[in-house]
Amino acid sequence: MSYIFEIEMEVRDYELDTEQIVNNANYLHYFEHTRHKFCREAGMPFIDMHNQGIDAVVRKIEIEYISSLRSGEHFISALNLERRGPRFIFDQAILKDDGSVVTKARITIVILKNGHISKGDEVAEIFSRWLNNKD
Amino acid sequence: MSYIFEIEMEVRDYELDTEQIVNNANYLHYFEHTRHKFCREAGMPFIDMHNQGIDAVVRKIEIEYISSLRSGEHFISALNLERRGPRFIFDQAILKDDGSVVTKARITIVILKNGHISKGDEVAEIFSRWLNNKD
Amino acid sequence: MSYIFEIEMEVRDYELDTEQIVNNANYLHYFEHTRHKFCREAGMPFIDMHNQGIDAVVRKIEIEYISSLRSGEHFISALNLERRGPRFIFDQAILKDDGSVVTKARITIVILKNGHISKGDEVAEIFSRWLNNKD
Amino acid sequence: MSYIFEIEMEVRDYELDTEQIVNNANYLHYFEHTRHKFCREAGMPFIDMHNQGIDAVVRKIEIEYISSLRSGEHFISALNLERRGPRFIFDQAILKDDGSVVTKARITIVILKNGHISKGDEVAEIFSRWLNNKD
Repeated sequence: MSYIFEIEMEVRDYELDTEQIVNNANYLHYFEHTRHKFCREAGMPFIDMHNQGIDAVVRKIEIEYISSLRSGEHFISALNLERRGPRFIFDQAILKDDGSVVTKARITIVILKNGHISKGDEVAEIFSRWLNNKD
Repeated sequence: MSYIFEIEMEVRDYELDTEQIVNNANYLHYFEHTRHKFCREAGMPFIDMHNQGIDAVVRKIEIEYISSLRSGEHFISALNLERRGPRFIFDQAILKDDGSVVTKARITIVILKNGHISKGDEVAEIFSRWLNNKD
Repeated sequence: MSYIFEIEMEVRDYELDTEQIVNNANYLHYFEHTRHKFCREAGMPFIDMHNQGIDAVVRKIEIEYISSLRSGEHFISALNLERRGPRFIFDQAILKDDGSVVTKARITIVILKNGHISKGDEVAEIFSRWLNNKD
Repeated sequence: MSYIFEIEMEVRDYELDTEQIVNNANYLHYFEHTRHKFCREAGMPFIDMHNQGIDAVVRKIEIEYISSLRSGEHFISALNLERRGPRFIFDQAILKDDGSVVTKARITIVILKNGHISKGDEVAEIFSRWLNNKD
């Protein structure tokens, strides 16, 4: 499987729980950080969008935990993006160096404009070079 | 909809993000805290299970974000439990005081015994008074 | 020792680290949550202050870790407040039910008004019933 | 000022609070991560120490917040180490690329051996090449 955007990260010990594995909630942090780095790559930092009245809001997350991350491990956080009408679908994964999948998730985002749901055309424009023009 | 276990919680400001709403990852913290309170209610604190070699591990989460929580808001975190073979399914929700749903999630747990996947019979025993004996 | 404001809290398992004690950073969360509850008690939620251009900013923290908190423990988070010119000094403590001290901290806050350091008179007004009029 | 160990890090948006600056508690996370990377550099990962019955426990933190970190900023997290009898003193700082100081902290660590306070000689051995032999 190939991805349009990847970053390298490493486990920080404060992300571990008493089972000495990364706590399930921290993967959402990893995924969010990756999406925000992707926004920055696209030329539109998330916080600048917010300060212009455009908020990308998570509507749905489906996440599978396949293996675990432990202290000191390095990993790849990767994503793909698709638009379905007003929804932006991020397929995200955490991968070990050998390519094995730690977690994978489908994250559905909708766009609020001044607090109201929108079609997300401004955001589609920002991501245009990565979106197939299906919509 | 009725639930077998509920706790009251309130938003803490450090859980908010720059959009002034609770960050998506914190709901997994709320859900986990609720499950662990439920374990304690059942007479088996999570950490005692771990120290006895039994680890409940999250395998899958499906979560829908329906509305938002803001600074100062109080809420109910509620759960139901079902067993499907070796899997324990928690249906969890965050509800406002008026009963409206903020988020709802289906969380699938499996049980490791000394690091190996198990049928989860010890855990089923702990939760026996809340489980229908379908299995 | 007596305090002007106290709340009851309990350890959440996701706050524990691999040593099975509450991670050192989480005490700053407990302290902040307590100060923000105190602001709300005083009639001025922290986020409302922010939205009016007044930001209470932490300038200095001195914290002593005396004992530890573990899974399932309940505790008291308490504070005192003093004004020293433009600085607000919060003396905060985390106490077990038997009164023994887990951590204690002195936290120095200054007030920004529209991004610039101020004398903090509006904030002193909000807290006036708890401040000795030394200043 | 020179440091014996430095790492590069960057702000993650989930670390920001509603004031759009990094929340005060997250600096303790940055500091801890830096110390743990330093332990790993010294050949003894923190978690391995724990699993051998040696726990480095934070006893005291004094931290000054001088400026703020915002979305997207890169920074240096640096430390120095000194031993004073049974105490290990970490002088840590967060620095911007231009060398200006964001926060600086003095963090005092003591060593527990199988749960009891110890002189810390095993830990001093691990860090011997960075310690002046004053003790």
